[in-house]
Amino acid sequence: MSERNRRWVIGANPLGRALETSDFRRDDQSRPAPGLGEALIKVRCLSMDPALKSYMENISTYARPTNIGDVMPGEAIGEVVASNCPDLVVGARVRGDLGWQDFAVVKHGQVELVHAEISDTAALGVLGTTGKTAYCGLVGVGQPKPGDVLVVSGAAGATGTVVGQIGKIAGCRVIGIAGGAAKCERLIEDLGFDAAIDYKSEKVRSRLRALAPEGIDVMFDNVGGEVLNDCLARLAPGARVVICGAISRYNADPRNPGQMPEGPRNYFNLVHAHARMEGFILHHYAAMHEEAQKRLTRWVGGGQIKESADVVEGFERAPEALLRVFSGANLGKQLVRL
Amino acid sequence: MSERNRRWVIGANPLGRALETSDFRRDDQSRPAPGLGEALIKVRCLSMDPALKSYMENISTYARPTNIGDVMPGEAIGEVVASNCPDLVVGARVRGDLGWQDFAVVKHGQVELVHAEISDTAALGVLGTTGKTAYCGLVGVGQPKPGDVLVVSGAAGATGTVVGQIGKIAGCRVIGIAGGAAKCERLIEDLGFDAAIDYKSEKVRSRLRALAPEGIDVMFDNVGGEVLNDCLARLAPGARVVICGAISRYNADPRNPGQMPEGPRNYFNLVHAHARMEGFILHHYAAMHEEAQKRLTRWVGGGQIKESADVVEGFERAPEALLRVFSGANLGKQLVRL
Repeated sequence: MSERNRRWVIGANPLGRALETSDFRRDDQSRPAPGLGEALIKVRCLSMDPALKSYMENISTYARPTNIGDVMPGEAIGEVVASNCPDLVVGARVRGDLGWQDFAVVKHGQVELVHAEISDTAALGVLGTTGKTAYCGLVGVGQPKPGDVLVVSGAAGATGTVVGQIGKIAGCRVIGIAGGAAKCERLIEDLGFDAAIDYKSEKVRSRLRALAPEGIDVMFDNVGGEVLNDCLARLAPGARVVICGAISRYNADPRNPGQMPEGPRNYFNLVHAHARMEGFILHHYAAMHEEAQKRLTRWVGGGQIKESADVVEGFERAPEALLRVFSGANLGKQLVRL
Repeated sequence: MSERNRRWVIGANPLGRALETSDFRRDDQSRPAPGLGEALIKVRCLSMDPALKSYMENISTYARPTNIGDVMPGEAIGEVVASNCPDLVVGARVRGDLGWQDFAVVKHGQVELVHAEISDTAALGVLGTTGKTAYCGLVGVGQPKPGDVLVVSGAAGATGTVVGQIGKIAGCRVIGIAGGAAKCERLIEDLGFDAAIDYKSEKVRSRLRALAPEGIDVMFDNVGGEVLNDCLARLAPGARVVICGAISRYNADPRNPGQMPEGPRNYFNLVHAHARMEGFILHHYAAMHEEAQKRLTRWVGGGQIKESADVVEGFERAPEALLRVFSGANLGKQLVRL
C-alpha cells in the first residue's frame, strides 16, 4: 500500500466562466491513518458530474461550502483497507463523497456499502445517483404513459442514456437529442432509442416536426438553451417538461443577471398546450429511491437497460475527464479509474 | 329602435406590433332583421380583452379566423328586442360573441341567458369568463394552501383583481404587482390585498425579498417579461407558477422568433425550488366551470369579492377602450357601455 496520498485540490473558483484544467492543483500528502471509529478507504473510481463545478463555485444553496486548497469533493467508490470501525470491515466496498484522492478517512454513516454483485462503474452510474435521477425525474415528474412521445436532451450523457431506456420500458416512442453522428448512432443501435437528432448538424425544430408530428408528450431536459426552446415549440396538449439540468448555463454567473443566458422564449407555449414545466432535485424524491434502485437493478440484470460508462484511466487525468462532461465528449457516465 | 346598425369592423391586421385605433374602421349598416329561428339582440355592453387582438391577427390555433372588413368579434351582453325563436324571448338578456355593433342576429345556442340578478358588468367580468379564468387558474392549477404566499402580476387587471380576492378567501397572504401608486393603493384599500408592488417605481425583486422573505408559493402571471423573471428568482420550495397571460408579449410576431421577447432567464430556479410552471386555457377546465360560477356568485353576493369594472361610455370609444387594456390604463375589467 502506497505511503503517498495523491490529491487534487481546488486551485481556483471557476464561477462565471468555463472550467479549465488549471483550476485544479496537485497537493499530495502522506497516507492518512484512521482514528478510533474510522476506516481508511482506498479510492478506486471517481464520478464526474456537472455539479462538481458548482461545488467549486460556492454558490449552491444545497452543497457544502468549499475553499481553495480543499481536496476536490466528489462521489467515488472505494475499498476499506484499514479499519477501526466494526461496521466497515476491510475488503468492503463503499460509495460516498470520498473526493479526488487515493485515500479517504471516513466514519460509519458517511459512506454506504455497495453490494458485491454491482460493478464500480454501475454503482456510480446506472445503479447510483445517475440512475435514480433518471428514474425519479422521468417517472416521478414526467409521468410517461404508454404511447407517449418522449424527447431527451443530452441523450448520450449519463442521465440521458438511462432516461431513454426507461422510456422504452414505459412504452414510449423515444427521441434523443445529442451532439454528433456517432452519439446518435449509438443511441439507436445500442440503446434502443427510436430516433436521434444531431443538434450540431440538424435543425432540431424541423426534425422534431418530422419525427413527432403530433408533438412531444414528455420532454426530459439536461441542456436548456435553444434545444429546450425548440422543444417548447413542439409540445403536445398536456405535455410535461422535466427540467433536470442545463449544461448550457453552467458557465454563467447567476450573481450577474445580465450575463445569464437567455431564457426559453417559447415558455408561453405552456399555455397553448396547457402543459407544465417542472424542476426537480433528487433528494426531494427520497420516497422513490428504493423503488428506483430495485427496478433499475432488475432491468440492468435482465438486459433491458445497458450500462453506458465512459472510463478515463488514471488519477492524473481527473481534471481532463471532468472537462469532457462540459464539452460533451463523454458517451454515457464519465468516470475516472484510479 | 334605431334603423341604423353602427359597426366597428377590422381595418388592419396588427400582428407583430402594438394595436392602434386606426386598426378599426366604422362600417355602419341598416339594422338587420331576424330570420326564422333567429332573434335580434340589442347590444348593451362590450367586453374588452387582450385576446381580441389575437383574433384580429389570425394566428391563434383556437380562435375562429377573421378577415379585414369583418365586424370586430368580442363577447358582449345584449337584450332580445325581436325574436322568431321560442327560446329567446323579447326582453331576455343574453351573453355571447355579439361583436362590436348595435344589433346582432343570433340563433338559439349561440348565446346563453343571463340571470336577471346579475348585472351587465358582472356578467362580463367577475361572473363571466374573467371570473372563471381566475378561479380555475388559481384553484385548479395553482392549488393554493392556507398560509401560502400568493403573488399576482397584472393584479389590477380584470383577472388579477379576482385572483387576489379568491386568494384571500383561500387563506393566502396576497401580494399584487401593478403599475402605478393609484392601482396599488386600490388593491390594498378596496380589494383587501396584503401588499402591492408598483413595478413602475419600485424594484420588484428587492420588494419581494422584503415582503416574502420565505419565498413565493403560488405565482399567478398575467404579464411575463421581467416581472415573471423576478418572481422566478424568489420561489419557495414546491412553488406553482400559473401562466395565464403575457401582456408583455402581445405585440410580438411568433412567426419571427428573433423578434420574440426574451424568455425568463431564471426558469432554472424551478429546479432549485423543485417548482412547476404550468399554462392553462379556460376551456380545458370545463369540468370546473359550474363550481367556479356557483362559488363566485356566492362570494360576490356575500361581499367577499368586490366587482372591479372600468366602464367606458359610448360605442364610438370601443377601439380606445381596447387600447386601454394594452397600456394598462384600466383598473379591473375593461368594458364599453353602448
